[in-house]
Amino acid sequence: MSVTAAQGFTAAGVAAGIKTGGDLDLALVVNLGPRHAAAGVFTANRVKAAPVTWSQQVLAQGGVRAVVLNSGGANACTGPRGLQDTAATAAAAGAALGVPAHQVAVASTGLIGVPLPMDRLLPGVARAARELSGDGGERAAVAIKTTDTVHKTSVHQGPGWTLGGMAKGAGMLAPSLATMLVVLTTDADVDAAHLDRALREATRLTFDRVDSDGCMSTNDTVLLLASGASGIEPDAGEFAAALRAVCDDLAAQLVADAEGSSKDIRIEVVNAADEDDAVEVGRAIARNNLLKCAIHGEDPNWGRVLSAIGTTRAAFDPDRLDVAINGVWVCRDGSIGEDRDKVDMRGRQVVVTADLAAGTASAVIRANDLTAEYVHENSEYAS
Amino acid sequence: MSVTAAQGFTAAGVAAGIKTGGDLDLALVVNLGPRHAAAGVFTANRVKAAPVTWSQQVLAQGGVRAVVLNSGGANACTGPRGLQDTAATAAAAGAALGVPAHQVAVASTGLIGVPLPMDRLLPGVARAARELSGDGGERAAVAIKTTDTVHKTSVHQGPGWTLGGMAKGAGMLAPSLATMLVVLTTDADVDAAHLDRALREATRLTFDRVDSDGCMSTNDTVLLLASGASGIEPDAGEFAAALRAVCDDLAAQLVADAEGSSKDIRIEVVNAADEDDAVEVGRAIARNNLLKCAIHGEDPNWGRVLSAIGTTRAAFDPDRLDVAINGVWVCRDGSIGEDRDKVDMRGRQVVVTADLAAGTASAVIRANDLTAEYVHENSEYAS
Repeated sequence: MSVTAAQGFTAAGVAAGIKTGGDLDLALVVNLGPRHAAAGVFTANRVKAAPVTWSQQVLAQGGVRAVVLNSGGANACTGPRGLQDTAATAAAAGAALGVPAHQVAVASTGLIGVPLPMDRLLPGVARAARELSGDGGERAAVAIKTTDTVHKTSVHQGPGWTLGGMAKGAGMLAPSLATMLVVLTTDADVDAAHLDRALREATRLTFDRVDSDGCMSTNDTVLLLASGASGIEPDAGEFAAALRAVCDDLAAQLVADAEGSSKDIRIEVVNAADEDDAVEVGRAIARNNLLKCAIHGEDPNWGRVLSAIGTTRAAFDPDRLDVAINGVWVCRDGSIGEDRDKVDMRGRQVVVTADLAAGTASAVIRANDLTAEYVHENSEYAS
Repeated sequence: MSVTAAQGFTAAGVAAGIKTGGDLDLALVVNLGPRHAAAGVFTANRVKAAPVTWSQQVLAQGGVRAVVLNSGGANACTGPRGLQDTAATAAAAGAALGVPAHQVAVASTGLIGVPLPMDRLLPGVARAARELSGDGGERAAVAIKTTDTVHKTSVHQGPGWTLGGMAKGAGMLAPSLATMLVVLTTDADVDAAHLDRALREATRLTFDRVDSDGCMSTNDTVLLLASGASGIEPDAGEFAAALRAVCDDLAAQLVADAEGSSKDIRIEVVNAADEDDAVEVGRAIARNNLLKCAIHGEDPNWGRVLSAIGTTRAAFDPDRLDVAINGVWVCRDGSIGEDRDKVDMRGRQVVVTADLAAGTASAVIRANDLTAEYVHENSEYAS
């Protein structure tokens, strides 16, 4: 159901020929209103792709009528031509839909530094506009895949209103955000300011805490569109919780499908002095290649957790650190704890718990292991 | 010749049985004087191994008569017992050599979180003391290897004085410092304050700029011992240059032998606003797993260089960034530059040049690619 689960939205996914091989590679999502409220969160990378620059400006001026998304090319580091191509994409969608180009957001994903094949992309936009339908959400979700093995969607049913969405992302998955394109839609009647507040809070706690491979993308885009078609103004807390649940579900799906991964690592940092400390420690653990290799090898090598924690500025006493792997406290007081042979790491889910004994704050970071398959996929990506 | 190239030093390397399999695993280096000046630089990791804590105290109180080094166990995260074991090691060496234990530095390397087999280590110390000789430097260098495939030594001949050293390190190679044990010896007549100044400057520019896998160790130790046996007081600038050359040589040897690596990556950041910016950008590039995979695959994927630069706080304009790979400027002004097919990446040495167009400062960071072999080595290390 994806982005068309909520009323007031149509979508399409077509094979425009941007990717070789005939896979779906262009998606269009349209908000039919009556409201066209929108919020967006974008990559923190200072090297931003043209569609990110464009969509930030679309958001700044107000409503969003439609979103064009393409896989098969990131349109990043493509200079002035890249921005022209994005503007032309928005113009083509605007013309096909009868809406102003400056109300059309654009998102792209794929290889950096390669111009988009506009001779194929623009006709694809026109075709997608003709194929729009109220059940096009699945095809749209498929069309934004790159190395994703499955498409990712999530839907939450509120009292009288619906929130749904789609996501792509399998590599370059790190804050802030992970390399991802996400479009969320709702028929709840929510204005842009509320959408913005709820989206920032939800992404901060979900997508921003995915750290699959430490690499931050140039193209990350999360858009939330509200049509108001249900006519129902939801309780703000209830809507925020629903949004967070959908984002959390999509974030978990991203980690589960990360390039070449064999394990999902859930890093729980507890008893930190404050949340920033907890996040800093969680990220340091998440990015430790040696630990990621050890977890791949099902080796409860807690020394690598400690050496990662030791690189941070967080408040802790090295002699009071406790670490558990899958619930076995293999490190107590910064030294040898329970028998490491008790740790069962055969499943895909691995939980690393780090107790800083410095306060009451906590955070969860989602990561992946490091595998030979990750190396293979990413050493051959461009060729 | 290693640590016994300079006059006034003896060394030994023995198989104490700390490692299974009978390999050399314990080294002893003795400064016969007349001077016993010393300087040391240690890991910046806040989780420090017992021998680091011990040796920092030895340095603080003054001269160093001897250094005991073992492979086969890091004695890190081993609690109070670990510190007792280190003290006992120093005491055993002191007793065998007739010098105070508090003038014996200790360094360990190997798995974290496992107590040392003191019943085998202590007899090994006594045996090493009996086997000391003026040409024991090579065996000492072999005895400190862990996953190193070759031992690393370097010697510089000054006018009337000699500086030499040994190093180990193949994984957990990142600042500050790389996971390394280094012992440098000289018969030049230099006092501790001058040694300290020269060593800090040399390590800052060499070992601290190795970033093989982004992982900082708990055990890094670089010691510089001066016997004064040549009777010659060297020119300070000449001595500093020699020290830097020896450290640079050893740093290059570490990168060349890094676990599972197939490429040495030299990252040159030029035209930065200041040296800190240059180092920050160099490290961000060095740690980008996707780029490391691409270089392994001989793919000049400059977009990954730009996305790494974009994560830093350094001064630059994204539209003025230039990037060369092996001398071909594949990225100009933040966009597509020369034809990437011109880049020849078949050799082991790969040079990535990033021009920030923001000033005149520069820095070089040495890194390695990411390979399936790295994953294999590090997923099976403890088991």
